[in-house]
Amino acid sequence: MTLPRSLRWTGDHLDLLDQRCLPHTVVYRQLTHWREVSDAIRSMAVRGAPAIGVAAAWGVVLAAKAGNDLDQAIEGLRASRPTAVNLSWALNRMQSSAKSNGWVDVHQLERLASAIEAEDRALTQALVNHGIGVLPEDCRVLHHCHTGAVATAGVGTALGVIVAGHQRGIVKHAWLDETRPRLQGAALSAWELGCCGVPSTVIVDGASGLLMRRGQVDVVLVGCDRVAGNGDVANKIGTYNLALAARAHGVPFYVCAPSSSIDITTVDGDAITIEERPEDEITHFRGEPVCASGVRAWNPAFDITPAHLITGLITEFGVIRSPSRESIASLPLAN
Amino acid sequence: MTLPRSLRWTGDHLDLLDQRCLPHTVVYRQLTHWREVSDAIRSMAVRGAPAIGVAAAWGVVLAAKAGNDLDQAIEGLRASRPTAVNLSWALNRMQSSAKSNGWVDVHQLERLASAIEAEDRALTQALVNHGIGVLPEDCRVLHHCHTGAVATAGVGTALGVIVAGHQRGIVKHAWLDETRPRLQGAALSAWELGCCGVPSTVIVDGASGLLMRRGQVDVVLVGCDRVAGNGDVANKIGTYNLALAARAHGVPFYVCAPSSSIDITTVDGDAITIEERPEDEITHFRGEPVCASGVRAWNPAFDITPAHLITGLITEFGVIRSPSRESIASLPLAN
Repeated sequence: MTLPRSLRWTGDHLDLLDQRCLPHTVVYRQLTHWREVSDAIRSMAVRGAPAIGVAAAWGVVLAAKAGNDLDQAIEGLRASRPTAVNLSWALNRMQSSAKSNGWVDVHQLERLASAIEAEDRALTQALVNHGIGVLPEDCRVLHHCHTGAVATAGVGTALGVIVAGHQRGIVKHAWLDETRPRLQGAALSAWELGCCGVPSTVIVDGASGLLMRRGQVDVVLVGCDRVAGNGDVANKIGTYNLALAARAHGVPFYVCAPSSSIDITTVDGDAITIEERPEDEITHFRGEPVCASGVRAWNPAFDITPAHLITGLITEFGVIRSPSRESIASLPLAN
Repeated sequence: MTLPRSLRWTGDHLDLLDQRCLPHTVVYRQLTHWREVSDAIRSMAVRGAPAIGVAAAWGVVLAAKAGNDLDQAIEGLRASRPTAVNLSWALNRMQSSAKSNGWVDVHQLERLASAIEAEDRALTQALVNHGIGVLPEDCRVLHHCHTGAVATAGVGTALGVIVAGHQRGIVKHAWLDETRPRLQGAALSAWELGCCGVPSTVIVDGASGLLMRRGQVDVVLVGCDRVAGNGDVANKIGTYNLALAARAHGVPFYVCAPSSSIDITTVDGDAITIEERPEDEITHFRGEPVCASGVRAWNPAFDITPAHLITGLITEFGVIRSPSRESIASLPLAN
């Protein structure tokens, strides 16, 4: 089964896969205004750090075509989610291009958005090729959240490594953290691996320690929303607890980080703004309350995994083992 | 608001609080046959290691009153859940009593079940009194699963310590792991603390590491289903990951363990049978699928926390710091 593309520019508007409807329905939203793109990012109709960067670039094109105030559109799109740096990275490139002529060249912006999308396809493929190299033979991989094709414009990051590793006979089985509160692992990763014929089993996020204690995990692969200059990583809530379990059991812990996710201007993990999402993602399930009324919840979307717990960062340039400020500074980064 | 009792013997049948209907409805099931008790334990209508031990004792009384084969009833009740040792502990006592006369003395069994229930009330109160002593002033406590009054015949264990600690002005705030897959933290613990006026906030299980990284947790308190002879603890899935996070941040990690949960005949954590529950507790939510069809899940109900991660076991006899085979063997245990 072929996976649906996360987005497609029609020359006129953006067709965006609504990931909230997966795995049960494939729905494309036709977005014609930048505010619809910003709403889609905020509501997580589109999610995955690489995909939201590309979607935001097309949002700027929509604003330019409609003759909207570009600075307002860019700042509106930037504010839609604070943690993933890909969003700012794509918007900064669009903004520089828009300012380069002194007037708004819609075609130039369209070519740049198209280039950003094509780069994402190329770099996720390069990252996946490097990622396969870290996998032990016949391995059982544990994965958190969703980092597959629909989270990018290309083949995905960590999940792309698992799929390619399985195609080459290296990955035997994938364990998938369900990833509360939005269950991206259960809903999206399990579906994508099923489409690609990779055997997988979903677990609750709290079961990773027991699984490792039983010797059932050979390597952990996750994605990221931002890598700070010292190698600390912001990724989906639960990643840090998983990294601690991996360290306790000597299981290698790799973070797939396209260079668009690496931000050397962020000094360390403590400097990363962590988005706090609505309480009802925890207190309710599909509109039904799971708690007594009046119960409060705290819902940070991401956490910080310190660099010392990371075996390696897998980038499109290769694998950075034991990431540090020095090794990250040596990358040919655009950020 | 007064909390409903987890169960009540009427002299004729067992009124059992159906915990699956909480927090939205208080429903008592009238159980008249031991098989109904066994089903209630298996389906988690009654849950919490101390409560299922007491319920099983009443199940034996129901069997005796009806003239059922007592050995068959006891083995049927014993098989309803394999991990919590309280169940076997209560059933062994009932079995010894039944065999002591050579004939079935219903009144003697009724007195013993009543005594087991009364002991649970007394020992949870004693445990709570000892537990308060480990709490730092003005503390913020993190708790996993549900260990409150309705999980016992008395005042609860870990949650009972939190409630009593708040009444004495020592506990400032409780953080509650929602506790996937059955959400006992969100559904039961948040409700009980709300009833008792203790301020609390629910988090997803994967957020405990970030919370500790931010210095928001002073102490972790959990319950247990079985303590092995060397101090390893079986408790609700996710406990081990939480213990690893606590260790990484130097946060004290206490396990509330009534002596009925301590089983010196189990040599260590690896010797504890871990119940695996149906996959649909993970793949479905209230009957609705959250995964694509055909997705598999692995659903262990418990995990093992090794003794070296445990700051102390809080028992009705006092607190055993850094539990070991020696310190556990020195307890005046019935098991």
